[in-house]
Amino acid sequence: MTDALRPVDLLISARWVVPVIPAGVVLDHHSVAVDAGRIIDLCPTVQALERYNPAEHVELRDHLLSPGLINMHGHAAMSLFRGLADDLPLLTWLNDHIWPAEGRFVDEKFAADGTLLAMAEMLRCGTTFFSDMYFFPDVTAEVAQQHRMRAQICIPVLDFPTNWASGPDEYIQKGLAVRESFRASEFIQVAFGPHAPYTVSDEPLLRVATLAEQVGANIQIHLHETAHEIEEAMSKTGMRPLRRLAELGLLSPALQAVHMTQLDDYDIQLLAETGTQVIHCPESNLKLASGFCPVDRLQQAGVNVCLGTDGAASNNDHDLLGEMRTAALVGKAVANDAAAVSAHQVLAMATVNAARALGRESELGSIETGKYADLIAIDMSDPLIQPVYDPVAHLVYSTNSRQVSHSWINGEIHLRDGELLRIDLIGLRDRVGRWSRQIAKAD
Amino acid sequence: MTDALRPVDLLISARWVVPVIPAGVVLDHHSVAVDAGRIIDLCPTVQALERYNPAEHVELRDHLLSPGLINMHGHAAMSLFRGLADDLPLLTWLNDHIWPAEGRFVDEKFAADGTLLAMAEMLRCGTTFFSDMYFFPDVTAEVAQQHRMRAQICIPVLDFPTNWASGPDEYIQKGLAVRESFRASEFIQVAFGPHAPYTVSDEPLLRVATLAEQVGANIQIHLHETAHEIEEAMSKTGMRPLRRLAELGLLSPALQAVHMTQLDDYDIQLLAETGTQVIHCPESNLKLASGFCPVDRLQQAGVNVCLGTDGAASNNDHDLLGEMRTAALVGKAVANDAAAVSAHQVLAMATVNAARALGRESELGSIETGKYADLIAIDMSDPLIQPVYDPVAHLVYSTNSRQVSHSWINGEIHLRDGELLRIDLIGLRDRVGRWSRQIAKAD
Repeated sequence: MTDALRPVDLLISARWVVPVIPAGVVLDHHSVAVDAGRIIDLCPTVQALERYNPAEHVELRDHLLSPGLINMHGHAAMSLFRGLADDLPLLTWLNDHIWPAEGRFVDEKFAADGTLLAMAEMLRCGTTFFSDMYFFPDVTAEVAQQHRMRAQICIPVLDFPTNWASGPDEYIQKGLAVRESFRASEFIQVAFGPHAPYTVSDEPLLRVATLAEQVGANIQIHLHETAHEIEEAMSKTGMRPLRRLAELGLLSPALQAVHMTQLDDYDIQLLAETGTQVIHCPESNLKLASGFCPVDRLQQAGVNVCLGTDGAASNNDHDLLGEMRTAALVGKAVANDAAAVSAHQVLAMATVNAARALGRESELGSIETGKYADLIAIDMSDPLIQPVYDPVAHLVYSTNSRQVSHSWINGEIHLRDGELLRIDLIGLRDRVGRWSRQIAKAD
Repeated sequence: MTDALRPVDLLISARWVVPVIPAGVVLDHHSVAVDAGRIIDLCPTVQALERYNPAEHVELRDHLLSPGLINMHGHAAMSLFRGLADDLPLLTWLNDHIWPAEGRFVDEKFAADGTLLAMAEMLRCGTTFFSDMYFFPDVTAEVAQQHRMRAQICIPVLDFPTNWASGPDEYIQKGLAVRESFRASEFIQVAFGPHAPYTVSDEPLLRVATLAEQVGANIQIHLHETAHEIEEAMSKTGMRPLRRLAELGLLSPALQAVHMTQLDDYDIQLLAETGTQVIHCPESNLKLASGFCPVDRLQQAGVNVCLGTDGAASNNDHDLLGEMRTAALVGKAVANDAAAVSAHQVLAMATVNAARALGRESELGSIETGKYADLIAIDMSDPLIQPVYDPVAHLVYSTNSRQVSHSWINGEIHLRDGELLRIDLIGLRDRVGRWSRQIAKAD
């Protein structure tokens, strides 16, 4: 009998498997077979044991196995500014703290250490793919690639100079070079990240749109984050920012619009008609008092909504599991409906909806044969957080991110029993300590 | 020299101490001396080492020492229904799931096991005092007393019969007996818990008010939880519930009004003028889509606002540290001001404001000489959640409740390095497992 078993790299057997597709399903005592980085089977564990001869068999008797979480918006390196200046009005926070600190400290080493710190936290909390928008995107891409974590790297584009580039021409030119150098990467995809409608004028936006279409890249932009943004745009351009982008031809499934707390009925119709993606960052929107994204209304209208943590400077963590919970809780209150934005819906937002927004629904975001083995396990045995009646509701409403026990990207293990296997935390902690002493002294 | 040192039971030396009073202060490298269950000194560690000869010296080099958290509203035993039926409209949840399950299962053993489960979770997350309102309050009080955890036990009073009592007379009579049996307790204080304006009519409310005043007891009531409650009261009584309670003479510093999501200007004025306490339960209000409590407006008006988790059936945890974060985040968005409901303010809400609402500001809620040694320590060394610029902001915005490392109640240790010392978790888990299988089968 044994020689009839198919050899595979890895078999993961779990108490519960949530494939995300089909929606709303929880499978008891199922196993995922992985070979050459891909999921090759999902079946009851009793069958898996009769079919496969795995090089490694991971048995997770109290665990839920889920697709890895995809954090669709952040500024990883800003983790070094985590909590630098909280409980301040937005403009005081930016003008007196964040911008001076960025001007003084952000360089290649800062980007490398800050990105690694954020990646460690994200991996520990169940994220296997992150989207990033920050200066030195080449460094962020390189750190992710080296540690074999998946990322969408958004090349910042602004009208004005920063530590990384002098203006739109240089941002775009450097960005195309980053894109070129990671063209063959299994882990990195490069997108454009024009910062926001109020920091990028029409001409560079049009160039970004044209280039993105030519090379098949996504575009991510901060959009309708605050009421102030809308008011200022109305007085300067006579148009809401979303309508300006529509006129410029930017709205499409390749556009990822981040925040979207200020939406009227026609905005929602425009998003739905053009297939524009929405990235919801609930904790950042709350903490900066930006407003409430109408998630339930967007989803009812057929808009694809994903989740992001935003940067640790305005959250203050990279815990997408916590963000799922906040999204579900706040989504219900905003919809005035306890049945809105369900646990299963927020898990989809953090997985398959993100894969769709990335244009990679065929490869990522669910536990289906043929997709990449980007998986996480959550240990549900904590005696303090019993009972477990519905494991997906439990994941969203009761689970602490420290219960994430395992993660795999491309079938490679990154987290085992809560321990990160590919990041030197001691060296990282020393470097972060040095940065924080310098930053605190200058603040 | 050594024989000049004063012997004390315990000295706790921490990297940071947040006394809460005075407000906004963080002390570096300070120590708390404890003797006979009370705080007898708070001073720099270098001085403490010259003053005291402690029987035990706990050195916490990466930790923040804070007053223990006070969870002002919950239904501990309902932890056995945690996640029984999520993402449902409120009435479906109650009528089809919670009420049938309560009718079938709630008895003395249920109350004992459910209370212990909730207490274990609360202690693990930094709570040292909880307020409870549920059937079999005698059992809840006994479990808390046995495990030497502090609690305010609110005797339920309703117009209709439940598993515990047949009607107002019996609720009140049994309640007075519970109060009598815990009169000498260091740990338990007994209050009245008329359930809500829509479940308790005028006559029993008046009796409760009279009795509470005679014996000096607090009263806790669910109030203005939903818009529906207000509308129904208006159509039945022509009055908003708060004004009905005002006419009945219930508004006073002894009244703890839980939820308060629906408030007009005159409601806020009434609360401020009468010194009525407000207990804010943000996660429950979000999850059940009840509405938003205007915390900043209440505090600006001088109303004392505290925090509660509510029961695990509608939250779904007893993590007051997480609740502090949600309160700060949502409080800013509701106030439309990123500077509102600051980290220091929510820590005060979860400590000294609660002590004030309990009528025990002289004994609890801050690290001051003469108060009870109800203390918690939080380990800030997690390399994934660095840097720490402001430890109180870090506590509220970045800290995971699993970082709570130590807790003391009355100077007695309950949690050491994250391990609960006074609760048998294995036995508890077995009993909870049996309850959950029965409850799931019946649901």
